Amino acid sequence: MAVNLTVPEAGALAPVAGVELGIAEAGIRKSQRKDLLVIRLRAGGRVAGVFTQNRMCAAPVIVTREHLALSADGKVRALVVNTGNANAGTGDAGMADARRTCADLATLLKCDPAQILPFSTGVIMEPLPVERISAGLPACLADLRANNWLNAALAIMTTDTLPKAASRQVMIGTHKITITGIAKGAGMIHPNMATMLGYIATDAVVSLPLLQTMVAHAANKSFNAITVDGDTSTNDSFMLIASGAAPMPEIVDGGSPQYTALRDAVAEVAGELACAIVRDGEGATKFITLQIDGGASEGECRKVGFAIGHSPLVKTAFFASDPNLGRILAAIGYAGIDDLDVSRLDLYLDDVLVARGGGRNPAYQEADGQRVMKQSEITVRVVLNRGAHAVTMWTCDLSHDYVSINADYRS
Amino acid sequence: MAVNLTVPEAGALAPVAGVELGIAEAGIRKSQRKDLLVIRLRAGGRVAGVFTQNRMCAAPVIVTREHLALSADGKVRALVVNTGNANAGTGDAGMADARRTCADLATLLKCDPAQILPFSTGVIMEPLPVERISAGLPACLADLRANNWLNAALAIMTTDTLPKAASRQVMIGTHKITITGIAKGAGMIHPNMATMLGYIATDAVVSLPLLQTMVAHAANKSFNAITVDGDTSTNDSFMLIASGAAPMPEIVDGGSPQYTALRDAVAEVAGELACAIVRDGEGATKFITLQIDGGASEGECRKVGFAIGHSPLVKTAFFASDPNLGRILAAIGYAGIDDLDVSRLDLYLDDVLVARGGGRNPAYQEADGQRVMKQSEITVRVVLNRGAHAVTMWTCDLSHDYVSINADYRS
Repeated sequence: MAVNLTVPEAGALAPVAGVELGIAEAGIRKSQRKDLLVIRLRAGGRVAGVFTQNRMCAAPVIVTREHLALSADGKVRALVVNTGNANAGTGDAGMADARRTCADLATLLKCDPAQILPFSTGVIMEPLPVERISAGLPACLADLRANNWLNAALAIMTTDTLPKAASRQVMIGTHKITITGIAKGAGMIHPNMATMLGYIATDAVVSLPLLQTMVAHAANKSFNAITVDGDTSTNDSFMLIASGAAPMPEIVDGGSPQYTALRDAVAEVAGELACAIVRDGEGATKFITLQIDGGASEGECRKVGFAIGHSPLVKTAFFASDPNLGRILAAIGYAGIDDLDVSRLDLYLDDVLVARGGGRNPAYQEADGQRVMKQSEITVRVVLNRGAHAVTMWTCDLSHDYVSINADYRS
Repeated sequence: MAVNLTVPEAGALAPVAGVELGIAEAGIRKSQRKDLLVIRLRAGGRVAGVFTQNRMCAAPVIVTREHLALSADGKVRALVVNTGNANAGTGDAGMADARRTCADLATLLKCDPAQILPFSTGVIMEPLPVERISAGLPACLADLRANNWLNAALAIMTTDTLPKAASRQVMIGTHKITITGIAKGAGMIHPNMATMLGYIATDAVVSLPLLQTMVAHAANKSFNAITVDGDTSTNDSFMLIASGAAPMPEIVDGGSPQYTALRDAVAEVAGELACAIVRDGEGATKFITLQIDGGASEGECRKVGFAIGHSPLVKTAFFASDPNLGRILAAIGYAGIDDLDVSRLDLYLDDVLVARGGGRNPAYQEADGQRVMKQSEITVRVVLNRGAHAVTMWTCDLSHDYVSINADYRS
């Protein structure tokens, strides 16, 4: 059961001019399940992305990076995403399968295979049933429409229990610009550049270098600030699409208010999707915000956040609503800040000051910790008292259901 | 239930001349449970140790390091260990409590407090009930005897289900030397210098610098090569005691066969204790040996071993006996070897070649993987094909019981 995750009404997801989505049942892993998605762009639309840093990255990640490099600015025509099989750890056959998917879609769209970006998610080290994907493509194309975002979110789910989608409209100068996106997550979530799969599109007109800067910025504030289980996936990809369909001047100045407005709106949509992934983390019963303040650098704040967010002991204590908060202090201690002075450290659970100066706050009452731990939404605030840097990150608890889900994943 | 862990008969644990152990019920956390241990050394006995690298290290760890520095070679008279409370995250009061424990035992033993080394294990960030410890010390002293190792192993348990002890006798020149040790583990096990608590004693005569080298060597091959949950404890301490009671010449040459024989026997006892900790890891149902071969350095082999051993996805697959082995490839991929060429990577499960050249071995049959995964003892062998370095490490699976044990730890 996801933690306080609301599925937006289909009508709340504003279509993005210049972007159409079509889905189909290809029967990749399970029958009677939408498992194939094509996102088609208008000619001239731009795409930028960030990808997993896992060295064992999946064949489609390799091919997508290659095609982004080959296709000149504005040449990408479509993205194709399958769920049920990650096409990772599949060697040369997997590369051929990813290329075959692109070639078949290119034939249908009458373009070059390098203008197609392929993505896969699902089980690792099993051959991709590429024939079924090819057979499913015509149905995706027949389904192409602009108001199809919620169905697209459904089609990319694996162990997700709910679809994840978010949408914003902002004024850029005098133009109302739309930003709509989808993502999938659930397990193997410790993104290192991006989450499992995330796609955000806007009709804004923005240069490709700025689009690339914007996607990295958004990833850093969202998908790179979450963890469910500390496993970095082989397939993480987060793609930002700018169709350029809006009747506005191109944004070419990274210092302009237009750029800042668009960048912040994109980061906001990405943040909402990233939090949705945590809320629907495998087996999650609690949504935990980690606020790390007073760091000497953003990097050390992230180390502390990830140490807490990865600790099975901290996560099981949250699951049990047990204020066994010394485990949080222990995690801070091994986060890897070599010169950390623990005697300057404060720890809050929501508004409750649990530890002060590295030890238990004399005024702290177990009942206060208990009260906060019982909530489904909890903020852990660590004050390092080393500097002015801060980060906000998100994680969830570790429950029996996480074990059950991952023990049974392939069955 | 521990995985194939045999508790040695008390008679199989050879007493170490010059070392006596006494235990008592101090009622530190639970009643009717042995929870206090004193280890007394003969005058002139030597002690060397390695400690947690956690910055949030416990008060007794700080005091033990301080006392080891203060007490000249051969001056340590006793170690005192309590379970039930870690005395970590306890600030100045915790430091005072650790010192008080030493002072009270020093009074009873008629020595200086700096000649006492204190250790604690248990829940973090709760005040140490130091009065109960002081009150229990006379009973420990009344119980002191050389053939008390199994009871000592019982007295330091927390969530351990079985006591851990090991013993060897080796000939050093013409002298039969004894090495006997105990350890406790179970959770918060990702030692970084040492395990939660481990004590090994020998009657050999060996110089203090060589004793220090020997304890670091043994830790590296044993307690630093295991992980249960990736949490580095606040209290890890591994102490090597050389009572010097054996009628033999002092070992002062690190290149001598006498040194090598003793070092290897100590490492063997430490390795057996470390594996016992994994076998009794919280909720463990499988004992996994990670053999990482062909690394360019020992350090990169350890990175790969820990990435596999920490992955909740890999660990739940072992729990389920599910050969979802792509998860192992994914973990190798994010282990942090930046220039890893995954196309040179081979993966074996016992004798089964699962992946070759980074992809699924065409001859691999799911049934073969299934057969090995059903065993309670499994070896994962990764061949990096980058060099001649290799490490052996140990871990266990992640089960429902791990979640239950840690959700209920304080109740």
